[in-house]
Amino acid sequence: MNLHDMVQGIQEGKTRAIAKAISVIERESLYANDLLQMIYSMTGNAYLIGITGPPGAGKSTITDKIVKEWRKQGRKVGIIAVDPTSPFSGGAILGDRIRMNDLNTDPGVFIRSLASRGSLGGLSPAVYDTALILDAAGFEYIIIETVGVGQTEVEIVELADTTIVVTVPEAGDDIQTFKAGIMEIGDLFVVNKGDRPGTEKMRLLIENMLDLVHLDWRPPVLISIGAEGVGIIEIVEQVNKHREYLSSSTQLTTDRKKALGKKISLRLQYLFEQNVIKRIFESSDFDQVLTDIIQRNSDPFTEVDKLMDRFCPWLKEEED
Amino acid sequence: MNLHDMVQGIQEGKTRAIAKAISVIERESLYANDLLQMIYSMTGNAYLIGITGPPGAGKSTITDKIVKEWRKQGRKVGIIAVDPTSPFSGGAILGDRIRMNDLNTDPGVFIRSLASRGSLGGLSPAVYDTALILDAAGFEYIIIETVGVGQTEVEIVELADTTIVVTVPEAGDDIQTFKAGIMEIGDLFVVNKGDRPGTEKMRLLIENMLDLVHLDWRPPVLISIGAEGVGIIEIVEQVNKHREYLSSSTQLTTDRKKALGKKISLRLQYLFEQNVIKRIFESSDFDQVLTDIIQRNSDPFTEVDKLMDRFCPWLKEEED
Repeated sequence: MNLHDMVQGIQEGKTRAIAKAISVIERESLYANDLLQMIYSMTGNAYLIGITGPPGAGKSTITDKIVKEWRKQGRKVGIIAVDPTSPFSGGAILGDRIRMNDLNTDPGVFIRSLASRGSLGGLSPAVYDTALILDAAGFEYIIIETVGVGQTEVEIVELADTTIVVTVPEAGDDIQTFKAGIMEIGDLFVVNKGDRPGTEKMRLLIENMLDLVHLDWRPPVLISIGAEGVGIIEIVEQVNKHREYLSSSTQLTTDRKKALGKKISLRLQYLFEQNVIKRIFESSDFDQVLTDIIQRNSDPFTEVDKLMDRFCPWLKEEED
Repeated sequence: MNLHDMVQGIQEGKTRAIAKAISVIERESLYANDLLQMIYSMTGNAYLIGITGPPGAGKSTITDKIVKEWRKQGRKVGIIAVDPTSPFSGGAILGDRIRMNDLNTDPGVFIRSLASRGSLGGLSPAVYDTALILDAAGFEYIIIETVGVGQTEVEIVELADTTIVVTVPEAGDDIQTFKAGIMEIGDLFVVNKGDRPGTEKMRLLIENMLDLVHLDWRPPVLISIGAEGVGIIEIVEQVNKHREYLSSSTQLTTDRKKALGKKISLRLQYLFEQNVIKRIFESSDFDQVLTDIIQRNSDPFTEVDKLMDRFCPWLKEEED
């Protein structure tokens, strides 16, 4: 499939073209940027929802139920499931998670798993770029779902317009860790598995933590039983409310600018890694440099200085 | 305290000089590099141990008990407790965790909390640099303890010679997430709170996962009850065994070269962020660039190209 056909296929919302395009992005092909540049003017219509929270909280179940609500309303929905990446192999750990349900056969739903990190480390730019492709393909809602609560996952979800943080009653013990980052990105909190003991306690705990932060938008704390579909309509309603809140002020633009700034920063870091750091690591005498430092014949600061002289003198000159 | 006095104080193992030096590192003062360069030749004698695992697994308790074992043998031990960082404020979430026990008053033990990320984002270089200072100050064992199992935490622990992964019987449900990264960095696994139901099941689960990976060093899976001191001596013994294994081959040098390579890469990324990306973000018309992209008057690819022309043309030229 050539680039022109791919772009046309995306515009027509054709599954095969979309899947091909995402693979191009994921493999970081040379023409990935051309593709994104060609489709960019078709984007800007989708609404991005991030879903995160500790493992086992029921994020996938809630995602599926929300998607079904939107499908009832005739909306097209894209799901990007972001998997943690192995620090060694660089690949996704969970592999392509297959949802064993009727969403798979619904042409109004597109599901794709992506690794959380790019081939050279760092937050994967593929997540944001895949959202652009789905946006261009006419998906009105795009859900970015991450496993875990690590820094990488938080950063991914920050790309979203509305972020839903899902937790469970039992997570109370880990609340300190839960707080780290997560409290600050949630626009909407859901205590899932809300028929278990400790549900009300967990809800109050979150409310109390929210009391400590002054926010224009006070995030609601909802209770759900995802597996039974309880509380799903309330989640959808609150997403709409948050969207209205963002749209009624300049907040949506401010947030999207911030996400775009991050995206630009990531792109530059990626180019620096690929063009400068990679070249240093692949240079023939780099191993000797490391050996000299390890044996204390030199030190990292002297050697980094020398490496900058050789590979990126412009970086050194700028240092103050 | 001037730099010369600080270096001398470190060499003499004086607590005040060590604490001052770590603050210099943490604040990223202009003379942090001078300090590190001056002490570097005094380093290379310490053995670094990483401790990680899910929240609530009992890492701090196990750390304290291991430290006491080494203190009985007269060894000096440093503990670096790495706290998750807020993606917004940039500060550590948990703050300076104070251990309410007798280790605090022991001059042979030095405890310090650090944030997991640096002031400009990215893995904090302060963790590695603090280990260098403690190394120069004559601490024979340095424990790097992290909260959580995120990518940042995994990368920090990768700096260690021996990594201990602590988990609890109940973590079984989250094993998929637990696998992510953690399985591959563990040199030693500990199922803590080993008097709870599911201990043997958890141990077998880890053993089974280890069966799938071919490793020269087969990580032992131990059971402990940290609070009662059960299983601590076995952990210390296995750390020694792993150290012997590493020392008997070229593995220790290979691992330390790898960690040093990461450190060099981080330093270069830091300089790039500080000298290039920061300058772009602070430029007077950057907000207008973002607005143009958001309004689809332009696209990110065209604008990144233009930004590179203005701020880092050398990066563009090198792109293939």
